[in-house]
Amino acid sequence: MDRSGGADFLQLRRDEAPPHGLTAWLVERVRAAVAEGRLAPGAALPPTRVLARDLGASRGVVVEAWRRLADEGLVVARTGAGTVVAGTVPASPAPRPAPLVAVSPLPPVDVPRLPAPVPEGVDLDLSPGVPDLAAFPRAAWVRAERAVLAGASDADLGYGDPRGHPRLRTVLAAWLARTRGLRADADALVVVAGVAQTLALLGPLLDAASGAGTAVAVEDPGSRGAREALAYRGVPTVPVPVDAEGLVAAELPASGAGAVLLTPAHQFPTGVVLSPARRRAVLAWARDTGGLVVEDDYDAEHRYDRPPVAALQAAAPGSVLHTGSVSKSLAPGLRLGWAVPPPHLHAELVAARHAADLGGPVLPQLVLAELLASGAHDRHLRRVRTRQRARRDAVVAAVRAHLPGARVEGVAAGLHLLLTFPGRPGLDDTVLARRAREAGVLVHPLSWHRVRPGPAGLVLGYAASPPGRLQEAVARLGRVLG
Amino acid sequence: MDRSGGADFLQLRRDEAPPHGLTAWLVERVRAAVAEGRLAPGAALPPTRVLARDLGASRGVVVEAWRRLADEGLVVARTGAGTVVAGTVPASPAPRPAPLVAVSPLPPVDVPRLPAPVPEGVDLDLSPGVPDLAAFPRAAWVRAERAVLAGASDADLGYGDPRGHPRLRTVLAAWLARTRGLRADADALVVVAGVAQTLALLGPLLDAASGAGTAVAVEDPGSRGAREALAYRGVPTVPVPVDAEGLVAAELPASGAGAVLLTPAHQFPTGVVLSPARRRAVLAWARDTGGLVVEDDYDAEHRYDRPPVAALQAAAPGSVLHTGSVSKSLAPGLRLGWAVPPPHLHAELVAARHAADLGGPVLPQLVLAELLASGAHDRHLRRVRTRQRARRDAVVAAVRAHLPGARVEGVAAGLHLLLTFPGRPGLDDTVLARRAREAGVLVHPLSWHRVRPGPAGLVLGYAASPPGRLQEAVARLGRVLG
Repeated sequence: MDRSGGADFLQLRRDEAPPHGLTAWLVERVRAAVAEGRLAPGAALPPTRVLARDLGASRGVVVEAWRRLADEGLVVARTGAGTVVAGTVPASPAPRPAPLVAVSPLPPVDVPRLPAPVPEGVDLDLSPGVPDLAAFPRAAWVRAERAVLAGASDADLGYGDPRGHPRLRTVLAAWLARTRGLRADADALVVVAGVAQTLALLGPLLDAASGAGTAVAVEDPGSRGAREALAYRGVPTVPVPVDAEGLVAAELPASGAGAVLLTPAHQFPTGVVLSPARRRAVLAWARDTGGLVVEDDYDAEHRYDRPPVAALQAAAPGSVLHTGSVSKSLAPGLRLGWAVPPPHLHAELVAARHAADLGGPVLPQLVLAELLASGAHDRHLRRVRTRQRARRDAVVAAVRAHLPGARVEGVAAGLHLLLTFPGRPGLDDTVLARRAREAGVLVHPLSWHRVRPGPAGLVLGYAASPPGRLQEAVARLGRVLG
Repeated sequence: MDRSGGADFLQLRRDEAPPHGLTAWLVERVRAAVAEGRLAPGAALPPTRVLARDLGASRGVVVEAWRRLADEGLVVARTGAGTVVAGTVPASPAPRPAPLVAVSPLPPVDVPRLPAPVPEGVDLDLSPGVPDLAAFPRAAWVRAERAVLAGASDADLGYGDPRGHPRLRTVLAAWLARTRGLRADADALVVVAGVAQTLALLGPLLDAASGAGTAVAVEDPGSRGAREALAYRGVPTVPVPVDAEGLVAAELPASGAGAVLLTPAHQFPTGVVLSPARRRAVLAWARDTGGLVVEDDYDAEHRYDRPPVAALQAAAPGSVLHTGSVSKSLAPGLRLGWAVPPPHLHAELVAARHAADLGGPVLPQLVLAELLASGAHDRHLRRVRTRQRARRDAVVAAVRAHLPGARVEGVAAGLHLLLTFPGRPGLDDTVLARRAREAGVLVHPLSWHRVRPGPAGLVLGYAASPPGRLQEAVARLGRVLG
């Protein structure tokens, strides 16, 4: 314990002291010493006069520093003993955060849900789930933001409506009615921070829903991230197979699930569209059992061959919780989406959103409303749709040239496609994906997104790469497959 | 059931049909009729040729409409029977959302947490919890946003780090170290959507913490919204009294709580600062029991008489979860804050944030980083601090003039102050607040924020009103009190 006083105390050096803010510097040095255990409880601080002299400072500087430390409870003035370090401060080390790799409950394979760094040596990242971020309409966004800040009221910047700003809900309800056939007015819609938040808010809704069970039937293959998000909340999931017509709805009754989560417009990862018969069967199950249909309107904006099928919600607004986001149309980093619950679950969903974060940030909501209302969002969609169609066509052509045994599954839509290999029954897609990575190409093995075993496949995200790069990637896959 | 075919079907009128988009119009009309039960299962759609003639449209328009409806599973083509409405569509009505008043689990009294409309006849809203939104630096925000969008990488717009963007964490960690004495580097910090989200994420942390209990001790009086947010998550709370030195820490051991939530820098609603002895006692409790201290750094930026006391976290980073936001310094509508957990809870907090919404929107994060790094945020704070100090002084002077029996509690800080009435022991502050409202002045009765009964008081938020209005409000309170 250093009782010598003066500037030797804590090895404070006059030439290290800043020209201004000497008090704050002194406070911080003592705080650090206490927190790191270099100054133990009971240790005496040097007399203010001595330390001030040694530091070439006025005594008031040191007095003020000791006063601030006393305010914080770090030191106490003892009669006859001067100022000493307080006795009850835990001598804990400075925080040393856990490394990020150990941080997430999700394995790093699920790129759409958790960003993993691109492995070394990879120059062609075809991970699915991310749109062409280079196409993000930056100029239109800034213009809209300027208009929003010029027009917003002061109250708009205050605590807002947990359902989302009325302006966005109004514009969004009209846009969803026009493009997705949705039957919901502005007051029925709840703005969310993406589909991931809808899934996080599902727990209380399942408890409130009248369905028989609280397990959620999920598509198999289907989004691994969605399954794991539900698991984190303690919501059990039951896999139901997906075939060329989408979810095998006939298996729903036996699943015992009280809800089903599905991607009817463009299934992830198989790319199929739920067939008319299956749509009817899913809704019949909901009607007969009181089950809840959670419709993740994944990718619906990106159909290249013809207009997308309307949302399931349009046929049965009383049974369907419809949810979507701008993650695939604009950018995932916006964390902006919507949920339209059945009327009997609306209050519960708003309460859950309120309890989660009081509602979303207002400025991005108003900017999106501006982009939707001005038509800028539709223009952006048309532009990227044309570009992405060309990219998909490039992959399909390259597959014919370099992977003649592979089959492109699903419809001409979305940001990704699934390749299967019917002529290669023993193929292990995780090995194939690893070899592809060694050749510099990142793709998802289909088995990452499966619960139960099934045929091998590769999921290729093509939205973010120009055609030449996609051709090169497929050519390398062809060499890897041999 | 209308089997007459042609345009009589659904009372479709040729002059109501839009000049363009006839197919979409037709699809929507049939969808609505099915969803509303006007077209029952089995009902026949008119032959395409007949309807097309009656509408003056090409037959292809109607064929395409029926095809889309079939894709959606709403109608089926039956051999010999033409196209009929499918049999299994639940005939549920269009959604009719519950009214907002029934929506929230919080009573509308807690204005800082849930915005309630200002009651009719109120022209002086002194509800606490909202800063001067007229001072929001709109021009600086737009400038920063333009710079951000010019400089951000494409990857910045993708799925981000659930802890928040590294740029904001870096700038924020330095700013918190400088202004609040925080001992945490960028990797220890987690960006959150305001303190409300920190509270929502607390559940899993309490399970993971090593403390004896999972109940949370809360200040009484204290934030009603915070108590109710914890209650929504099923986290029990235990009230611990607050006196002129802040939380009565001596009552913590007997409370059985595993954590304590408190506002040491400027207690809400009493306005007191946690005394040095109490700071030591709280940290001693944490050290002795392994309890978690949740430090809501409420209002800390707004001290008018001298620099604020450093954060509790600075003294015991291993025991304190520090959390704060820009809701009081910039605007609550930004939904942007931070949490610095003890190192052993860091992974759990990141996992909880990831499961909640995958992390926050990136653009507001980068804009705040820009404002912090450029000094624009500090300039804004200095400006509003000067203005708010004048407003507080105006209230204090008006209280002396018009409410001579009232006492202004707490230190010269923050956005609100508490008035008590020592000479009026029988006073019912809810009656007083109601009469004030009838006189056009909105204030909070202290008892709204109490768990256990105690002396009457009024909480006045002064940040958002100019001095003249504040004087008028206090004068009216004086007349009401008589």
